[in-house]
Amino acid sequence: MTGRDVYIRSAASALPGEPVDNATLARRFGMDALWEQWVDVFIGTASRHLALDLESGKVTGTLADLAAEAGHAALVAAGVGPEEVDAVVLGTATPDQLMPATVNIVADRLGINGVRTFQLQSGCSGAVQALDVARQFLLSGGGRTVLVLGGDVIARFYDVERDLRTAAPAELVNYVLFGDAAGAAVLSTRPAPGSAVVHELFTRLVGLGREPGAVLEWFGPADRDSDRPAATEDYKAIEQHVPEMTEQVLTELLDSRGWRPEDVDVLLPPQLSGRMTKLITERLGLPGAQDVTCVDRAGNCGNAIVFLQLERALGGALGPGRRAVGISVESSKWIKAGFALEGC
Amino acid sequence: MTGRDVYIRSAASALPGEPVDNATLARRFGMDALWEQWVDVFIGTASRHLALDLESGKVTGTLADLAAEAGHAALVAAGVGPEEVDAVVLGTATPDQLMPATVNIVADRLGINGVRTFQLQSGCSGAVQALDVARQFLLSGGGRTVLVLGGDVIARFYDVERDLRTAAPAELVNYVLFGDAAGAAVLSTRPAPGSAVVHELFTRLVGLGREPGAVLEWFGPADRDSDRPAATEDYKAIEQHVPEMTEQVLTELLDSRGWRPEDVDVLLPPQLSGRMTKLITERLGLPGAQDVTCVDRAGNCGNAIVFLQLERALGGALGPGRRAVGISVESSKWIKAGFALEGC
Repeated sequence: MTGRDVYIRSAASALPGEPVDNATLARRFGMDALWEQWVDVFIGTASRHLALDLESGKVTGTLADLAAEAGHAALVAAGVGPEEVDAVVLGTATPDQLMPATVNIVADRLGINGVRTFQLQSGCSGAVQALDVARQFLLSGGGRTVLVLGGDVIARFYDVERDLRTAAPAELVNYVLFGDAAGAAVLSTRPAPGSAVVHELFTRLVGLGREPGAVLEWFGPADRDSDRPAATEDYKAIEQHVPEMTEQVLTELLDSRGWRPEDVDVLLPPQLSGRMTKLITERLGLPGAQDVTCVDRAGNCGNAIVFLQLERALGGALGPGRRAVGISVESSKWIKAGFALEGC
Repeated sequence: MTGRDVYIRSAASALPGEPVDNATLARRFGMDALWEQWVDVFIGTASRHLALDLESGKVTGTLADLAAEAGHAALVAAGVGPEEVDAVVLGTATPDQLMPATVNIVADRLGINGVRTFQLQSGCSGAVQALDVARQFLLSGGGRTVLVLGGDVIARFYDVERDLRTAAPAELVNYVLFGDAAGAAVLSTRPAPGSAVVHELFTRLVGLGREPGAVLEWFGPADRDSDRPAATEDYKAIEQHVPEMTEQVLTELLDSRGWRPEDVDVLLPPQLSGRMTKLITERLGLPGAQDVTCVDRAGNCGNAIVFLQLERALGGALGPGRRAVGISVESSKWIKAGFALEGC
């Protein structure tokens, strides 16, 4: 390491339209009150935002739309102009197109040009991967300011013609668990009031020999007749492994910082669903930590959600000298990700 | 910068099946001898490899297959075991699935675990982006050895039922221009005999306000009825801009190194097609440079081709003290990419 520090100067988010609650989803897909109650209690996610007109099934917005909105807000909040940005990094599982990479469309809309752009293909660990690539760029002396973006638009996977009453639980849950969003953060080698220093940040593949816990397909023209499902999750495996992987990340972060559990003031836990997040947070048992959860209102919005958490933490719990740990777990092929911050 | 150097220790490639020549393609798609001649002369690409059974249209291999094969060969060539790899970076425009990222499947097959993995979504600049992220990781002190991969499998875009005699030229050319392949390189902070030091390496988005020159769509279930073409290119824009962008990258590399044109011993030029590459190379006018071209036999294989060039250069032209420049141009949203090497 160079000894140089990297700071999160600002964070922002963009959510499409009004929140869609469980009653609205139940009504749209012809599900009964029992189902609605099941979502409330066993998923624990009360609402989500969708870049989708639920009546027509028409997709109403793109990842580029949301990421540009969040990116603009993060730049404004950091007081950074587009000409000061030395690189742009975007994490997503659901790019608008395979080419051009969506990050380049976003850069164009924000007036950013002549710099490095990177787009990371990833699931729930993608936000941390994007922060990681940005941090390495800054630590290696490549520049002073990076705009980091993360987001997903899963609206195009919604089939509003689908009769959910005949759907298997594993498919059903896809319609309530996720949400569309993008988020952004400005990383800099220079601190400012209200920013947070990034002490540690890592992602770690731990999928050796293990089956994927989540799969998301894309279809080329030759695959159009395929009847394989676009999205599948092994919720049993996810429920089994994510809590213990979360504990492992916490232990690694505390060990590397020399922090005790009671030193953690703010916790940004994995955001799978309202219920899973609650269970995980209770199990971690950080006595003094205020937890920052967004999944209960915004759904699991993949590569965006860490930025939603950062936005809320920077605007509140994470004051000067306050210590935070953030943890993400990607179940696709099992990736652990975490970071340790301290308010400036 | 830390002052530390990064070295390319080895490079390798994997190509599916036997080369498919223009006569075979012409026969398969019912095209006449005139067309075959047109491909020979105006595209200048004599053959390509396809992960496709041309008779049935069945895709015969995945990006993970090819990348694992190339990755294994590069590790063996560098004498590096999977347990010594500190990170894996893959560049591709055509991942096998959206999740898990293909890089994680490849890591699994190679026995690599517990480390960072990154997958960059990119077109022709993706190999350089992947090398860039790997180099930043090494320069920032994150580790000592990175396996870098790049590849594309465009076979799933081939529609063997398509009657090419009625196809527009812009669509027609997609069937002859591209090829499937993967490549790999081992980057290290420690040199070895036969390796090359990476003096400079950058990518630079220059697409501000410009229309994309190449678009590649992916289709979710909701897009299956879409009749928009999966792949489109603006060949006029590409022919107009790529040569001058190549010159700009060369100038920037020479300026930053203080090299004169006659100091360049080896040139790795952009690999769009045999003909375009030849025109570009002649225009650059590097008097003493031996050029390393693979596109005429392997087709434009996207994120793989720089590794094919590196493999050939490391195995031949790039001996101790010999200087090389590599240049890629991505027409999707216009990215310039380049690097300068010196043999150890």
